[in-house]
Parts: sequence; structure tokens; C-alpha cells
Amino acid sequence: MPYVNIKITDEGVTKEQKAALIKGATELLQKVLNKNPATTVVVIDEVNTDNWGIQGEQVTELRKK
Amino acid sequence: MPYVNIKITDEGVTKEQKAALIKGATELLQKVLNKNPATTVVVIDEVNTDNWGIQGEQVTELRKK
Amino acid sequence: MPYVNIKITDEGVTKEQKAALIKGATELLQKVLNKNPATTVVVIDEVNTDNWGIQGEQVTELRKK
Amino acid sequence: MPYVNIKITDEGVTKEQKAALIKGATELLQKVLNKNPATTVVVIDEVNTDNWGIQGEQVTELRKK
Amino acid sequence: MPYVNIKITDEGVTKEQKAALIKGATELLQKVLNKNPATTVVVIDEVNTDNWGIQGEQVTELRKK
Amino acid sequence: MPYVNIKITDEGVTKEQKAALIKGATELLQKVLNKNPATTVVVIDEVNTDNWGIQGEQVTELRKK
Repeated sequence: MPYVNIKITDEGVTKEQKAALIKGATELLQKVLNKNPATTVVVIDEVNTDNWGIQGEQVTELRKK
Repeated sequence: MPYVNIKITDEGVTKEQKAALIKGATELLQKVLNKNPATTVVVIDEVNTDNWGIQGEQVTELRKK
Repeated sequence: MPYVNIKITDEGVTKEQKAALIKGATELLQKVLNKNPATTVVVIDEVNTDNWGIQGEQVTELRKK
Repeated sequence: MPYVNIKITDEGVTKEQKAALIKGATELLQKVLNKNPATTVVVIDEVNTDNWGIQGEQVTELRKK
Repeated sequence: MPYVNIKITDEGVTKEQKAALIKGATELLQKVLNKNPATTVVVIDEVNTDNWGIQGEQVTELRKK
Repeated sequence: MPYVNIKITDEGVTKEQKAALIKGATELLQKVLNKNPATTVVVIDEVNTDNWGIQGEQVTELRKK
């Protein structure tokens, strides 16, 4: 029944990589807490680098440095 | 003042269906908790089926089965 | 498969009211989008009135006015 | 280490405005709680006006009134 | 820089289990997307079983069946 | 109409500091995007340091170093 939300920057993540994140997060919850994969939900949000900030700056700008 | 976030897969939801979700969620909060519709906020997120996992698999793949 | 998150202020919501929110939100998704209740997840967050702001003020203070 | 999520309607927000939101939120956490900007994360979500409701109505419709 | 939010029911999760979830999620992002652990944030929310619904019912009630 | 969610560790944040975060975030949205404070919502989540991870470790442990 767990719900996992993964937010990452939108920088060319492939369908296969997303599948690996979903599989890995579901297995992690099963291994650590014995949660049932049948009702484990994983949602991946891809965020534009203009919309993600760290250190007070947009990732778009940090990538240029 | 409530805030409701509805996450669904991005599979052709129409503007009218979104309006029905917003109206329905707002009415639910008013009916159950007497919350004021004027400040009830509803946000709908549509998520690509590659980015939504359940049972450790992408919905994109589950839809094919 | 939808995920619904309802955030409300923590002001004496009863177990029965929470059950009504969960039932109502699940039925709304079924009625509007034909979503399967078996995998519809609803999570309610109750937030202290000191931690909820609107109009730039804490709800705790707004309640006194 | 704080995480700030800002949800706004998707109505022509510029890259410069997003940078100002990121800078301002990071500075706010530093000023009020002495949080380290190096690990303060800000994520901005732009939401279609069809997907944002208040007063039980879509913002798209409210904008027409 | 990823942000991972794990929501689980509040049913006696130990500090060690939480540490394992944090370590596992951080390693998953590093393995799949080569993300830097130094800025990967993981937040775990424990939700009362009265506040978590699936199948239109509170987990508190489902646990009794 | 914006919605701002601020997640911080639960380490003795005072009511006055929360009020300052709410006021500051509301003013930021007004200044940068001319958003109406009357419908700007700010929600602060305080997270136990056992439940917050960075660098693959719990903040509880990082604080000891």
C-alpha cells in the first residue's frame, strides 16, 4: 500500500530507467517492510531544470558552471 | 481552506471530466466537514503511464497485458 | 490506480468523517473516470493550524478574528 | 535541507520569474530558520488552468468571468 | 538532487527500517541515474491507518478483516 | 491561488518562525507574480529527523557527526 513519489530533473530519462526506478522502489519496500508489491504505487515526476532550484539557483544555470 | 491533489494517469481525460472532479471534491469537503468552497483548492496531476508504476511495473506495460 | 491526497486543518476531524472522505473520493474517481476502487488510494493529512497559512497569516490567528 | 514546492497556474511564467521564486524561497529559509542554501531545494510546478480548481470551478472558467 | 517521498502507514516502523529505506532509495537513484547521493533527499511520511484509504475503506478497518 | 508546501525538519521551530515563513512565502508570490495573498495557501510540514535523509543517511545520525 505504500506510495512513493520520485522527483528528478527532466534530462533525458529513458523508459527503461523509469522502469528500473519503479521496480527498485517497489522491491525496496518489500524487502525492508514486507509491503505487498500489488498495491505499491510509484509516481515519477520529471521537472524542467528551470523549475528546480538548489543553492538558490536554477539547475539550468548550475549546469553551465 | 482544504487542499486536494488528485493524481491520475494521463489517458485522455477531458476538460469536462476535470471540471467534474473539481466540483465533486469541493462538494465532498463541504458535505463532510462543512469546508468553505470559496477557499477549497483542487489540483489535478496527469501522469504519463511510463511514469506510473504499480505491482513493480509501468502502467504502459500493464495496459498491454 | 488514482492517488488522492486531502490536506485539512487538524481540528477534531472524527474517524467517521475521515471514512466519509475516503469513501467519497473513491466513488468520485469511479463515477467520473471509471477508476477501479480496489487500487484507488486516499491519504488524509491533518495539519496543525499554526502550520497552515492563508492571506499571509496562520489559521490559528485567523480563527481568533 | 528544506524542501519547498511551489504550485502555480501555467500562465506564462518566465525563466527570470522562476529564478526569483527560487532565490526568494531559499533566502526566506535562511533568514527565518538559518537553513543552509547549499542544500535547500525548491521545485516549481506549473499547472494547467483546466487542472486547477477553486470555488469548485476550473481557473480556466473563472478567468472568463 | 532527486527528491524521494515515501508514504507508509504508521505501524511500528523502526528507526533502523527508516534508515534502510533512506539508504536504499538513495542507492537506487545513484545506480539507475547516476545521481549524487550528497544532494539526494528522502522524506518518509508515516500516516495513521485511519487516514489511509484503499478500496474506499480505512486501512484500520481493512486490517480487522 | 498559489499553493506552497515547505518541508523542514522538526527541530523546535517556533510559532513565530512559522508565521514568518507563511508571511514571507505569501509576499514572495505577490512580489514576483502578483498573486493575490487572499488565496495563497502555505502549508508547513515538520518532519522527524529519523524520517529525513540526505547523503543516504538519517539527519538524526548526521547531526551527531
